[in-house]
Amino acid sequence: MTENPIPSDVDPTLEADVFSRNCSSRAVLQNATSRWGLLALVALRDGDLRFSALRRRVDGVSERMLSQTLQALERDGFVNREVLQAIPPRVEYSLTELGSAAAERLSDLIDLVEGHISEVHESQEAHDARRNG
Amino acid sequence: MTENPIPSDVDPTLEADVFSRNCSSRAVLQNATSRWGLLALVALRDGDLRFSALRRRVDGVSERMLSQTLQALERDGFVNREVLQAIPPRVEYSLTELGSAAAERLSDLIDLVEGHISEVHESQEAHDARRNG
Repeated sequence: MTENPIPSDVDPTLEADVFSRNCSSRAVLQNATSRWGLLALVALRDGDLRFSALRRRVDGVSERMLSQTLQALERDGFVNREVLQAIPPRVEYSLTELGSAAAERLSDLIDLVEGHISEVHESQEAHDARRNG
Repeated sequence: MTENPIPSDVDPTLEADVFSRNCSSRAVLQNATSRWGLLALVALRDGDLRFSALRRRVDGVSERMLSQTLQALERDGFVNREVLQAIPPRVEYSLTELGSAAAERLSDLIDLVEGHISEVHESQEAHDARRNG
């Protein structure tokens, strides 16, 4: 039938523990927090988007990378992909309930980093100064 | 003097916008949400840790990767590295205020994913069944 997505060395009755190297939640977290996964999820908080619009929003992503990213997020149940009856057919992406909850938490993290970016730059400069002499 | 950590094509007077490809906050976010960065930050929420203890907690990380991860987090101002006077000298890592705030948000995300891991597995199985059949 279907491939079992849980590695065979993981006991599925155990609670998920991301600190354990075999925990399947690690890969799911990585899909959601990857360079492009994080931005795609947060971009979809503003509303459903077609592929091309999402690609414009996530500045710098290639078609191939965005496509792979969305496929992983769809597989994990974070993103819905809907083919709309139209000529030509349109494909729209939206957040699931789980994806929306994840995007909210990622958005909090982005706000934190953007709000402290001057402090981060000061830390980087001080660190580089110490290393350079 | 020191290297300017802000790429020269970025106007530092602009507000940080992680959706812009040149925004320096992207790299900072990536350090905090990387496979090992995320786990190291959240592990340090339970208290300061020596390198070896942190490595045991973040199951599966190599010495080299953990060292690179901690150096990036220290440079960005998320982690403090303190050399304690002892024989032999001890190095302890702790969260800064910013690192602690980031770790709290990442911890929320981990709780979300771990709490919904059955739902994620069901989505993965359904997705793989559609693709294979």
